[in-house]
Amino acid sequence: MRLQLSTWPEVENYLKTSRGIIMPIGSTEQHGPNGLIGTDALCAEEIAWGVGAATGALVGPTIGVGMAVHHMEFPGTVTLRPSTLVLVIRDYVTALADHGFERFLFVNGHGGNIATVRAAFNEIYAELRAERGAEAPNLRCRVISWWESESVHALSRELFGVAEGSHATPSEVSVVQYTHPNHIKEAPLDPPIAPSGPFYDARDYRRRFPDGRIGSNPGLARPEHGKRLYDAAVASLAEKYQKFVHEE
Amino acid sequence: MRLQLSTWPEVENYLKTSRGIIMPIGSTEQHGPNGLIGTDALCAEEIAWGVGAATGALVGPTIGVGMAVHHMEFPGTVTLRPSTLVLVIRDYVTALADHGFERFLFVNGHGGNIATVRAAFNEIYAELRAERGAEAPNLRCRVISWWESESVHALSRELFGVAEGSHATPSEVSVVQYTHPNHIKEAPLDPPIAPSGPFYDARDYRRRFPDGRIGSNPGLARPEHGKRLYDAAVASLAEKYQKFVHEE
Amino acid sequence: MRLQLSTWPEVENYLKTSRGIIMPIGSTEQHGPNGLIGTDALCAEEIAWGVGAATGALVGPTIGVGMAVHHMEFPGTVTLRPSTLVLVIRDYVTALADHGFERFLFVNGHGGNIATVRAAFNEIYAELRAERGAEAPNLRCRVISWWESESVHALSRELFGVAEGSHATPSEVSVVQYTHPNHIKEAPLDPPIAPSGPFYDARDYRRRFPDGRIGSNPGLARPEHGKRLYDAAVASLAEKYQKFVHEE
Amino acid sequence: MRLQLSTWPEVENYLKTSRGIIMPIGSTEQHGPNGLIGTDALCAEEIAWGVGAATGALVGPTIGVGMAVHHMEFPGTVTLRPSTLVLVIRDYVTALADHGFERFLFVNGHGGNIATVRAAFNEIYAELRAERGAEAPNLRCRVISWWESESVHALSRELFGVAEGSHATPSEVSVVQYTHPNHIKEAPLDPPIAPSGPFYDARDYRRRFPDGRIGSNPGLARPEHGKRLYDAAVASLAEKYQKFVHEE
Amino acid sequence: MRLQLSTWPEVENYLKTSRGIIMPIGSTEQHGPNGLIGTDALCAEEIAWGVGAATGALVGPTIGVGMAVHHMEFPGTVTLRPSTLVLVIRDYVTALADHGFERFLFVNGHGGNIATVRAAFNEIYAELRAERGAEAPNLRCRVISWWESESVHALSRELFGVAEGSHATPSEVSVVQYTHPNHIKEAPLDPPIAPSGPFYDARDYRRRFPDGRIGSNPGLARPEHGKRLYDAAVASLAEKYQKFVHEE
Amino acid sequence: MRLQLSTWPEVENYLKTSRGIIMPIGSTEQHGPNGLIGTDALCAEEIAWGVGAATGALVGPTIGVGMAVHHMEFPGTVTLRPSTLVLVIRDYVTALADHGFERFLFVNGHGGNIATVRAAFNEIYAELRAERGAEAPNLRCRVISWWESESVHALSRELFGVAEGSHATPSEVSVVQYTHPNHIKEAPLDPPIAPSGPFYDARDYRRRFPDGRIGSNPGLARPEHGKRLYDAAVASLAEKYQKFVHEE
Ligand code: NI
Ligand code: NI
Ligand code: NI
Ligand code: NI
Ligand code: NI
Ligand code: NI
Repeated sequence: MRLQLSTWPEVENYLKTSRGIIMPIGSTEQHGPNGLIGTDALCAEEIAWGVGAATGALVGPTIGVGMAVHHMEFPGTVTLRPSTLVLVIRDYVTALADHGFERFLFVNGHGGNIATVRAAFNEIYAELRAERGAEAPNLRCRVISWWESESVHALSRELFGVAEGSHATPSEVSVVQYTHPNHIKEAPLDPPIAPSGPFYDARDYRRRFPDGRIGSNPGLARPEHGKRLYDAAVASLAEKYQKFVHEE
Repeated sequence: MRLQLSTWPEVENYLKTSRGIIMPIGSTEQHGPNGLIGTDALCAEEIAWGVGAATGALVGPTIGVGMAVHHMEFPGTVTLRPSTLVLVIRDYVTALADHGFERFLFVNGHGGNIATVRAAFNEIYAELRAERGAEAPNLRCRVISWWESESVHALSRELFGVAEGSHATPSEVSVVQYTHPNHIKEAPLDPPIAPSGPFYDARDYRRRFPDGRIGSNPGLARPEHGKRLYDAAVASLAEKYQKFVHEE
Repeated sequence: MRLQLSTWPEVENYLKTSRGIIMPIGSTEQHGPNGLIGTDALCAEEIAWGVGAATGALVGPTIGVGMAVHHMEFPGTVTLRPSTLVLVIRDYVTALADHGFERFLFVNGHGGNIATVRAAFNEIYAELRAERGAEAPNLRCRVISWWESESVHALSRELFGVAEGSHATPSEVSVVQYTHPNHIKEAPLDPPIAPSGPFYDARDYRRRFPDGRIGSNPGLARPEHGKRLYDAAVASLAEKYQKFVHEE
Repeated sequence: MRLQLSTWPEVENYLKTSRGIIMPIGSTEQHGPNGLIGTDALCAEEIAWGVGAATGALVGPTIGVGMAVHHMEFPGTVTLRPSTLVLVIRDYVTALADHGFERFLFVNGHGGNIATVRAAFNEIYAELRAERGAEAPNLRCRVISWWESESVHALSRELFGVAEGSHATPSEVSVVQYTHPNHIKEAPLDPPIAPSGPFYDARDYRRRFPDGRIGSNPGLARPEHGKRLYDAAVASLAEKYQKFVHEE
Repeated sequence: MRLQLSTWPEVENYLKTSRGIIMPIGSTEQHGPNGLIGTDALCAEEIAWGVGAATGALVGPTIGVGMAVHHMEFPGTVTLRPSTLVLVIRDYVTALADHGFERFLFVNGHGGNIATVRAAFNEIYAELRAERGAEAPNLRCRVISWWESESVHALSRELFGVAEGSHATPSEVSVVQYTHPNHIKEAPLDPPIAPSGPFYDARDYRRRFPDGRIGSNPGLARPEHGKRLYDAAVASLAEKYQKFVHEE
Repeated sequence: MRLQLSTWPEVENYLKTSRGIIMPIGSTEQHGPNGLIGTDALCAEEIAWGVGAATGALVGPTIGVGMAVHHMEFPGTVTLRPSTLVLVIRDYVTALADHGFERFLFVNGHGGNIATVRAAFNEIYAELRAERGAEAPNLRCRVISWWESESVHALSRELFGVAEGSHATPSEVSVVQYTHPNHIKEAPLDPPIAPSGPFYDARDYRRRFPDGRIGSNPGLARPEHGKRLYDAAVASLAEKYQKFVHEE
């Protein structure tokens, strides 16, 4: 059940049976020569919708632009400053909490978001405590990236081995090839497996990873691999969501 | 051409021929008993994509949650505070300006966004002037709501007359019925035409407009009307975009 | 009754009979070769005082510096960033609401303020809702520019026709000539009627409108015209204020 | 020369001969039973105008609402939060610095402003250093309260002795009686000299000083005393301004 | 009793007998050729700990980096912007107020902090009033610099006379020599007594005071002088703290 | 070499040979019945000083209050909101970068800080890019918690096994017993090993972990264990620092 495709009386009814909601959050950033700029947003959104379908959970509006400061040397990347992203998450969560939602599972598509999302959760807790004291709602916010499960990890390893890398991975590119089959791109990848390593700001990133990939060979991506990864991610997250909303 | 469905080398190429970009902005807010909560976001996004297709313009990521403070008494509404929305627009525009984009046409789906969007444009101009002085890029930002054209107005009048109203209108509901035919909702509307008038905060809004509609009868919405409105809006905006990017 | 010319016991008494207040807001920005930099602030302030005299309403402190980012290429212009103006309005309104004021009519002298003022109203509603929930005061904030009435429009048209333009207009210059007769300036205006059109940032504004005027011939301004415009504006706003404070 | 009563070409000319400007800053807050709420704003403004007349200096727009958090238990007080006032001063100064102004003398009418004004100066220096580095303009900002001079102190002592007190003083009330003779108020003052002492927040202030005065007997105020104080303040500040703008 | 060296049950017990706390605040900034960069932080901290020992008061965590914008042309200086320092103090005080602390005595080691600290106190009062209204805790915040007492002043005069100056003073250097005897530095001081005068931003400061000192000869500093100053400061502040926490 | 115990000419000299600096960051929060509230700050500070001694690196001022929102139900906890901590780190780093420092190793003592610290690094990169574009300094910021090394992990496991837990651990309590032997506390711990699990806001934390510990038995802490852990942490971090400052 997608919030944007529901009416307000439908949401009112939903709240009679559940206080949980799934919040997709991704990023709009370069994903190498053949990965879509929307890869992280599309993965998070599609998988969150899948979890919603599997569990009956409501799925809120996607945060499609995240914290991608380090990708800014590549045209097309859009980023929120961490301080802005904190406010966006604060506004989404407190608006929904105002209606009675209490458990927020953020389904994340971008590793670079995690720190800021966690900072945001504590910003929310602190602000509500300041404003409402003992009357503050008992919110529970959690973030899980779609690839954070044994089954997805195992599948990535099986399908791509060391070519998985850590940015513009064949796994995420595959998922988007599966969900957006009309937008599969071809591009030369040289070297096939990109260099790896740590990085600092955007210029440093581009110097180390000139085509944007880190440690990956997304030329191995296939829509059929994407389907398997998608299904595994949805299954794993559906189970985690159920636990999360029923946890004492 | 959608930014999220492009690769960074494709955006790099695009920038060789154009400095313009279309930015959809909507809202996630109640739209009466039968209107989708995502109505404004979906209208803006779909119409912006249509304009992109018609003109070859790049279409950036949708801002799907806008300024909907006054709808907060209806479950499911999500809102950014105006101050947050200003920062979001600031971050989107300055990130894209960093890549060389200079002309930003915001295709808007929600009247309540306009004031804040305009404030944001001036915040951006002021901040860039402070930070870069004479080296600040020559940005031009404009916002046009999809219904702001003679042709769309005429069509709304023809199709719905006085039942158009100003919130949860049969026009916008029709557009979404056309773009999202699997999500057409039925709901009793009593009275058929909702009351009209000014309003202040969210509680005041709900008191005056108990089911969320203002002056409208969205029961008249039909997908086929939506198609006509959509086509008229795309045609009008495509023309305005062309003028905008070529204006001296 | 002007707040700054009252004592606190007088305000305490006023609050026993009324919860309404008039808030003048203008701008301190270039107004062409012969218009005073304070034109918008002085018009708003003088007309607000007139409305106060006509209705017995309390008139709060003038916000004399507004949102004038686009005039910054002309010496003497002072501007608040939109984000600052939002906070200023937030602080004025919440301070007065703390004393019991509930209805705020902003009498505006500058078109460039309107978007930010409206954003501020929603920022206030959102913040009070977050902080006080159901205990938030029932504030009603409205902004009306002094020229927004049939009678003032008709008079401008009659007096100046197409030479009215949209910035540094003969109407506003006339009002200030009437209220500040010792500060009437003479300056050559070439061409007599300035160019018109849209604009973006401050540099763009100056390039298009080299002496600061838009579409106007303020050489036609006369104090006696100013008196008629002033009287019409005061009468119209006094009526609107009465409706506003008595509206259910 | 008042900025708001000048045209932009006049300011352009002024800048050819001087980089200095006088900035009045006051407060809109309770001033006891017979003191006007605008006392601090009116004193600062009128005295600043006097200094402008005496020296030929340009006088900027008055900041009429200052930091009056501690007076908020008295109806009619308006206050900016310190954080807002910092931004207001930042915006005023950086806008004027953009035109070439370099020396800013704030003529202050309210002791409660001083800390925040000084914080603001350093905020400005820090921000300009961050944004412009070695290219930052060489701004010099100073704040002097109108009563900060030997001559004014001596006069207050002579006229009012121990009844001067520290808030709602006969000196400041006298100045406003002189500048605004039509707004002289009568009110019983019991006890004639108000209690003295430190205070913390607004509730604490009201508990200690129930009618708003601190240590003063403003019943001694007279317009003719006000004239002497006004003249002494203007003379002293005019001299300080001349030194300030010519200081190496 | 130092907060950081206590356990939470010990603090819980402390709160049964007292609502007062001492908060050391200093700065990390150049202190001339032979003064430690931490001089202000170390003085504040050590003296605060001494007051804690003398009175049994709890001493909170030291704010070791303060408002030192004007020292930024000297390597090693670290500064918070005033706006950041306001938030830091807001967070410290409101966190402790949440536990029940009500009286906060800031023991200050840096003149440049005072304005911002006072602004912060009013920011806190304003914010708590906005958030909690009549339920806001009755906080009392005060700042006293360690040298603000007759006894300390007399001692400085006796020991150093006109060579005391106002920055990098022999008094503060002596205190640190006493508390940190292993870190006494030698450096040529030329001229022995540094120049004096006002200053504006960091570049202006360095131009006027090339080695960082203002009006002082810290070559006169001795640990044994430091001991006397330390003892006098602790005794004076201990007495003031006792009055402060028992004041009605 | 500690920044606060150095003079500015010493820092100027240091910068001729190194652009690196170590920044201790901890927290001031409950650490169970026998752990000091300053545990995380003291560990970070002492270990950072050890690394400075081992490598000759400069050690900046300790950030002693971190992100401890979730511990706020225990008296004595002090916390910065994440948004404040971001600004504090921004101010520290940009001040030091202004002097020429380029590589910042944050030695961390509190897991709850990590997300916000990482958000801060990106906030800094984004802000410098916005303000300085291609002229932005090439900063590299990294955070490592003192326990993040094979040797420290192995030692904790060897010494405490499953009783290590994750908050108020015997390892961190041991380190402070070693560095602050006069402040070793005794307290009953019931049950000896505290419960484990996830948590959300402060109330939720206290409900789950009534005495503040998570999964640990800090009754096993001993100063001699602390010495071994301290030595291992210093050795590991010294090596990492050397690599970090020499990394290309
Ligand atoms: Ni990705
Ligand atoms: Ni709509
Ligand atoms: Ni105007
Ligand atoms: Ni006063
Ligand atoms: Ni000092
Ligand atoms: Ni710890």
